[in-house]
Amino acid sequence: MTSTLDWIAVDWGTTHLRLWLMAKDGQVLDRRDSDQGMGKLIPDQFAPTLAALLSDVPNASAYPVIICGMAGAQQGWAEAPYVTTPCPPPGAEIATHAPDTDWDVRILPGVKQIHPADVMRGEETQIAGLLLENHGFEGTLCLPGTHNKWVRIKVGQITEFRTFMTGELFALISGQSVLRHSVDTNDHDQEAFETALGEAMADPSALAANLFSLRAEGLLNGLSTAAARARLSALLIGAELAATRAFWQEDEVVILGEGDVARAYETALKTAGGKARCVDAETLTLAGLRSAYAQLGKAAL
Amino acid sequence: MTSTLDWIAVDWGTTHLRLWLMAKDGQVLDRRDSDQGMGKLIPDQFAPTLAALLSDVPNASAYPVIICGMAGAQQGWAEAPYVTTPCPPPGAEIATHAPDTDWDVRILPGVKQIHPADVMRGEETQIAGLLLENHGFEGTLCLPGTHNKWVRIKVGQITEFRTFMTGELFALISGQSVLRHSVDTNDHDQEAFETALGEAMADPSALAANLFSLRAEGLLNGLSTAAARARLSALLIGAELAATRAFWQEDEVVILGEGDVARAYETALKTAGGKARCVDAETLTLAGLRSAYAQLGKAAL
Repeated sequence: MTSTLDWIAVDWGTTHLRLWLMAKDGQVLDRRDSDQGMGKLIPDQFAPTLAALLSDVPNASAYPVIICGMAGAQQGWAEAPYVTTPCPPPGAEIATHAPDTDWDVRILPGVKQIHPADVMRGEETQIAGLLLENHGFEGTLCLPGTHNKWVRIKVGQITEFRTFMTGELFALISGQSVLRHSVDTNDHDQEAFETALGEAMADPSALAANLFSLRAEGLLNGLSTAAARARLSALLIGAELAATRAFWQEDEVVILGEGDVARAYETALKTAGGKARCVDAETLTLAGLRSAYAQLGKAAL
Repeated sequence: MTSTLDWIAVDWGTTHLRLWLMAKDGQVLDRRDSDQGMGKLIPDQFAPTLAALLSDVPNASAYPVIICGMAGAQQGWAEAPYVTTPCPPPGAEIATHAPDTDWDVRILPGVKQIHPADVMRGEETQIAGLLLENHGFEGTLCLPGTHNKWVRIKVGQITEFRTFMTGELFALISGQSVLRHSVDTNDHDQEAFETALGEAMADPSALAANLFSLRAEGLLNGLSTAAARARLSALLIGAELAATRAFWQEDEVVILGEGDVARAYETALKTAGGKARCVDAETLTLAGLRSAYAQLGKAAL
């Protein structure tokens, strides 16, 4: 396998890291992941973490490593300064070299927006991959996650974006609030989801009261955990859809993801009268990293 | 001291319990509290918890004990069924006796509302106290807490109420979310509070995005922790004020509490153009328990 290894692609997020051993022709030789996200590491621990994940690869540190994500944050391996919108997804030519290491590491920059103040790290590389695979794409992207992002693309540039803490709120409320027992299920009630979505979009200010109602409905009316969990999800996503109408009322939304959360956004958008489709996000991350590596090759010519 | 002890008043909440040793003339002989809230106890542990708190009181279990709060919940000492709105604050005549105990314990009922589904346990006793001390009161009450309550009173009855999980959301977000470092301070920025309150009331749907902006403003513009914490508080309270306009736009709001959270609601209401004043809540709880005990005396005549 290592006979054809050419470089290493890494998506190093807050809670996880994923890496791919890449051949010169762009083929993936192996994929590895770990829970050693940036949130668990101090700067000195990034190189040993990478080495441990590649301990079976002879002379691993000799290969170029392209990294996107939170490894480039202030508290990460080395700070990769933000590029400011409007801008194309930043490329490898302005990547940051990790200092004081034997590794040939390049960390891609994130993107910032001045007003409203907002930041992304990692998503810009997925967007680079999407633009590479859908040349000339213009419109709205939705990138579901702990911090869900809505992004507008025009003429190959990220012109505007907005981040919602919706995923993190869902995790906190469903895992640690008074509602945790009320929503403790893997079942889903689609009708409850659609009803609550409409309620939330009509009056998003009542979120904190509608949340408590889930508890009261359970005590008084035996609301099922499946209905309560669906309603919780819909109340949070519904408020977000009310706030992002300008992003989705004209354009079809391309949702970068195919898991449960991405599907929930797709359903919500369609229920609200919008248009949406899901695409695989990991493929796009890898395409973005490949594109960055190709730029590097050109830069070296 | 115990020579004049007549009965024992208890406010037994989810996280704490407070009790008062009461003389026949209504005088408080002693006040005790503990962190043995209902959330930490199974039904069999309530009597021993009470006994431990009163271990120095000779023959303590011979005195009548009047309890309000979560001790009457399904998972509490003994379930005290809800009374349904519209209703006056329920009195001692329909209190629940704790079974299988030597203690002469009466647990006051909570109040439920059918639509929108909502419940209270403990607040109804504060309201009883308020109505006792302000005969003929009509209008709006705000009872700040983990689960903040807005209550409308007419002709001595609780006619309508709505509970907001605002306090719990503030605790989760400030203590456990990505924002925890951004808001880690005891300082307060009043100007930031007032600005964010207006933003939240104008567009409450953007809550999850405005929350993430606190993080981005910190990274990009050096937003202070005092301003971030004030904004977090204002974003949550602002959405709540937008949702409760019908409760406060006509009436002066009487806020049951005098701590930081109560003062934040008072400031928010005044900033939003409403009228509000704070009153001491513990006094009212005790007045409500006293009133229940007095009813019991009459009932026994």
